[in-house]
Amino acid sequence: MAEHDVAGLQRRLAEFAAARDWEQYHTPKNLAAALSVEASELVEIFQWLTPEESARVMADPDSAHRVRDEVADVLAYLLQFCEVLGIDALAALAAKIDRNERRFPAAESPREKP
Amino acid sequence: MAEHDVAGLQRRLAEFAAARDWEQYHTPKNLAAALSVEASELVEIFQWLTPEESARVMADPDSAHRVRDEVADVLAYLLQFCEVLGIDALAALAAKIDRNERRFPAAESPREKP
Amino acid sequence: MAEHDVAGLQRRLAEFAAARDWEQYHTPKNLAAALSVEASELVEIFQWLTPEESARVMADPDSAHRVRDEVADVLAYLLQFCEVLGIDALAALAAKIDRNERRFPAAESPREKP
Amino acid sequence: MAEHDVAGLQRRLAEFAAARDWEQYHTPKNLAAALSVEASELVEIFQWLTPEESARVMADPDSAHRVRDEVADVLAYLLQFCEVLGIDALAALAAKIDRNERRFPAAESPREKP
Repeated sequence: MAEHDVAGLQRRLAEFAAARDWEQYHTPKNLAAALSVEASELVEIFQWLTPEESARVMADPDSAHRVRDEVADVLAYLLQFCEVLGIDALAALAAKIDRNERRFPAAESPREKP
Repeated sequence: MAEHDVAGLQRRLAEFAAARDWEQYHTPKNLAAALSVEASELVEIFQWLTPEESARVMADPDSAHRVRDEVADVLAYLLQFCEVLGIDALAALAAKIDRNERRFPAAESPREKP
Repeated sequence: MAEHDVAGLQRRLAEFAAARDWEQYHTPKNLAAALSVEASELVEIFQWLTPEESARVMADPDSAHRVRDEVADVLAYLLQFCEVLGIDALAALAAKIDRNERRFPAAESPREKP
Repeated sequence: MAEHDVAGLQRRLAEFAAARDWEQYHTPKNLAAALSVEASELVEIFQWLTPEESARVMADPDSAHRVRDEVADVLAYLLQFCEVLGIDALAALAAKIDRNERRFPAAESPREKP
């Protein structure tokens, strides 16, 4: 992971879009929709699998490639969304984990997921 | 962004789930569904906005907070999904950008987004 | 079901939106997004359930109400989407079933769902 | 619409699945996921369109066909979901419209969509 950093990938994505004149499409509204479409394409891979089959999805090279490809698409739109709105995704997640640690103290948390 | 790295956040998320005995819920199938649910909560913020209104969403502190919060949720489930399947999300995205640069050469790319 | 017909519900939805001056929000693009947001709210109810738990969801009155409520929201946006685009949803489905019966003959269909 | 009724379509969908031994896949959880995947395929058609372009989507025969096809898929999974859980979708929607008419009286409703 050391070789790829979020800021560098975000820059490559921005240059890619600019070189193709695609920035006009990249409103926050459209990028959020595209993100959700890609997340659904990830769901589609798993939709008829049992929980056990879903855990073995990387054992088959074709489905492993498909999963990695959809992960890339989700991350691409998430980073582009953050780019156009000036959001630091990693800082947002760190702040959220801080809040959740206060909100759901480990000792008291129900074992049933809320 | 320097202070927060993907690997560190992934570790915190794994510890958070383990301390609450939530790993049993974290099948790849469930995490993909949760990711798409969070992506839709991001879409919901924008669903009735015009493209122009969507571009100003960070100007209002409440909606800015809500957007950051949903970004954090999407990234949290994406990283947990990658963790359980052993996927390096940043490497997957770097590989995808490489493929897209070959597939859609800038000079020949249609200005209309495919 | 005899008392409620699709055309009547579609008319009530159209009148409801018109009386509140909400037609301005109901572009096909926005209604498709709203439909997908409601579908995800249905998914959310099931996201951490096992397949077996998911089959018993109507046994609890609260979750039964929540499920019916989300079904209503999905159908509401589907019918409003069809209304603004002049699509007959039932005819579209009938035509699709006809096509699928030709495309996947029962005798030859793989038992594994495509 | 007179020729196609919801109950009849629901029966055809059930027979179609039974003849292919696909009922095993049709847990409520899986059908909700499939519904959201199809709703996202509808969103995908509109994701880069302006609101104005989205209103003209039926003018092109190819995209009109694609839209009708996705509407059929959404409705198919919604009806199959309702079938396995014994939900009357039209009654659920009628009850929801009743509730919404009480909750958002036309005269007092904000013109801004909540």
